[in-house]
Amino acid sequence: MSRFIDYIARKAKNNKTLKKAYQSTVSSYLNTHIGEITPFNPRPSDNTERRLNLLVPSINQEHLFGGISTALHFFDELYRTEEKSHRRIITTDASPSDEDLLKFSEYILSSSEDDLIENSYIVPFNDRYNKTMPIGKEDLFIATSWWTAYFAQRVVRWQAEQYNQPEKKIIYFIQDFEPGFYAWSSQYSLALSTYQYTGEQIAVFNSSLLKDFFNNKDFKFTEEYYFEPRLNSSLKKYLIPFEMMKKKKKILVYGRPSVARNAFSIIVEMLRVWVWIQPNPTEWEIISAGEQHNDLDIGNGVVIKSKGKMSLDDYANELKESAIGVSLMISPHPSYPPLEMSHFGMLVLTNSYENKDLSKLHENIYSVDNISPDSLAKELMVLCSTFTKDNFVGNCKGVVSYLEDSKQFDFIEDIKGKL
Amino acid sequence: MSRFIDYIARKAKNNKTLKKAYQSTVSSYLNTHIGEITPFNPRPSDNTERRLNLLVPSINQEHLFGGISTALHFFDELYRTEEKSHRRIITTDASPSDEDLLKFSEYILSSSEDDLIENSYIVPFNDRYNKTMPIGKEDLFIATSWWTAYFAQRVVRWQAEQYNQPEKKIIYFIQDFEPGFYAWSSQYSLALSTYQYTGEQIAVFNSSLLKDFFNNKDFKFTEEYYFEPRLNSSLKKYLIPFEMMKKKKKILVYGRPSVARNAFSIIVEMLRVWVWIQPNPTEWEIISAGEQHNDLDIGNGVVIKSKGKMSLDDYANELKESAIGVSLMISPHPSYPPLEMSHFGMLVLTNSYENKDLSKLHENIYSVDNISPDSLAKELMVLCSTFTKDNFVGNCKGVVSYLEDSKQFDFIEDIKGKL
Repeated sequence: MSRFIDYIARKAKNNKTLKKAYQSTVSSYLNTHIGEITPFNPRPSDNTERRLNLLVPSINQEHLFGGISTALHFFDELYRTEEKSHRRIITTDASPSDEDLLKFSEYILSSSEDDLIENSYIVPFNDRYNKTMPIGKEDLFIATSWWTAYFAQRVVRWQAEQYNQPEKKIIYFIQDFEPGFYAWSSQYSLALSTYQYTGEQIAVFNSSLLKDFFNNKDFKFTEEYYFEPRLNSSLKKYLIPFEMMKKKKKILVYGRPSVARNAFSIIVEMLRVWVWIQPNPTEWEIISAGEQHNDLDIGNGVVIKSKGKMSLDDYANELKESAIGVSLMISPHPSYPPLEMSHFGMLVLTNSYENKDLSKLHENIYSVDNISPDSLAKELMVLCSTFTKDNFVGNCKGVVSYLEDSKQFDFIEDIKGKL
Repeated sequence: MSRFIDYIARKAKNNKTLKKAYQSTVSSYLNTHIGEITPFNPRPSDNTERRLNLLVPSINQEHLFGGISTALHFFDELYRTEEKSHRRIITTDASPSDEDLLKFSEYILSSSEDDLIENSYIVPFNDRYNKTMPIGKEDLFIATSWWTAYFAQRVVRWQAEQYNQPEKKIIYFIQDFEPGFYAWSSQYSLALSTYQYTGEQIAVFNSSLLKDFFNNKDFKFTEEYYFEPRLNSSLKKYLIPFEMMKKKKKILVYGRPSVARNAFSIIVEMLRVWVWIQPNPTEWEIISAGEQHNDLDIGNGVVIKSKGKMSLDDYANELKESAIGVSLMISPHPSYPPLEMSHFGMLVLTNSYENKDLSKLHENIYSVDNISPDSLAKELMVLCSTFTKDNFVGNCKGVVSYLEDSKQFDFIEDIKGKL
């Protein structure tokens, strides 16, 4: 459905009549439908084999970074621990193109209309109006976002009734507290409801910090596992002793205007204060990495230069050259840039959030409770003078596991025993 | 500034070049500025009189309902307890017109450029670029929204330094947990920061439920007071014994598509499920009150009729005629419709939120934890059959204070002693 709306929206831009129709019809549609929970209807299947189902919004190239890529790794490892399970990836929000499928050469592309018995296959189910998905008695579900959990919770109930068996456990791969992505609203409540599910659910948290956050809020899961962040292996190749890095008076900010929880407007407002309290601010170069935006003149002769989404090479070079990093994240998730920056000898300014305090993860990280622009600007000035005065090259001390090569999902055999 | 943006936005609609300029310039402006905290700059004043300052976004006719109107009543009562204080209303987001001022005949309209000593005056300060507000040593501040608290917290620090005196206590009139109005973002964090202020702050909560919510989250205030909701005195006149109300098979929903926390889309999705599980659904009339929207065909012959924002007369009649009410509010605030509906003998379906459980406030209220459309639809069906089977006329038992005429702010003398 979202594709249809996109199409109408594009057309509507250039046509007055359509524009009017769009505004009254589509905006009313959006206000009265909750697209995320467009029914995911099951139908019986004769397939009695055990099958792992990954419910994921998309496996398209443009979405294959961060969260979804981590979930796919987990799914892959879980599958490899099984002796003769099948596996099926079901995409709920987008359909992969031929090009997107190049990275999934072990898989066969199928359709919800067929009821194949294959080792590994992908079934797009984004366009599901009036369609059903074949569900057998031994299907197991791994949810990766609140709405895929919402579906899994309804499908296992149907499955239990259909096959007259106990409800299957769901694996819920949790990478953030997703209600926080919304203002108090329908979506907020539905996201929250997936954590309050009373059936059996195995939670796998991205980081102990996130797990602790859920525990503090008293959400109950049947079992709980977590994994910790690791430095991206491609970036790791660039890691050299700090003394060899030739740090410059350069501030690297993690700038993503479209991701609200990265608080881009606070970073910019903070820098607008900083330029007036920092001695010789024009000696400092300010680079924004993450998402392309206009270069921003922030006063007193200083401009934020946007480098957008950088290649790993370019990003690694910025990490090596920059003295100071600023990266905010309004969430209990640790987020990667502060960890990457600190391990490349940068002094990092970031924020705490409830139980999150990243200064415990690396000595180079300065985590503040007060995120107001005036207060952050003062902190940044302190970091600038630490660097300038002492010709500082950064601390080395961080948590050890971040640089380890051992298995990230070392609990996976244990999960297998619990399924 | 928001007025300027509105102006450009209007112009931009009809002109391609402007449209492009609007998109790149204004949208970038919005992403990198936090309009709410446009600096509120103080300047010294020779005025040494005690003066109560109400910091409020607007006193314009169109904003004078609910929260702002309650804050003005509180301000008025507080002023009347004082023997010779002055009072000043400072509007931060909008400027009142001559018509808006008709309701403020006791006040004189002034400007931030003047430094008047008057009993009662209003100073618009929405257009404050390059302007300052005269602040004397005995100015006291009452904040009514997170950004007005943000200003007050900075102004009392300035005031303490300027006049070499301890920081004044702030009165923070809190009517909801405002970070909940945003996804995790810059605004979310800044709203939250106003509750984490370490200076002296007297909190006045709209309802014990909201106070308990803050207490559960461990926010600390120097003093805490609360007041409970009261039935609107104009509605009270319509209150007659339930037996005389002639209840019809009518469901009244509180429908406000533009207020996310009222979860309008969940109500509509729920009714789309309900029409297929309810016996003879077309016997029921469904009315939506609150905000005008298109009538909605929800299937199986049922249409939701929108009545928009109704007059008190019309609303009272709907309350008397309707058997069942549905009103959702994703917030710890009790919200008024469920209380109004239940006191008019309607069976009310609403949601719990953390410590909020409105079924404790009236026997007619059914409060559910699970807010998913399928689960709510079943609850609604149960309420419909309760009404139909037993020819039910509603319970009378609610908390007593809701219908009382005594003073709502009975703690106001106590606050005066603490200032």
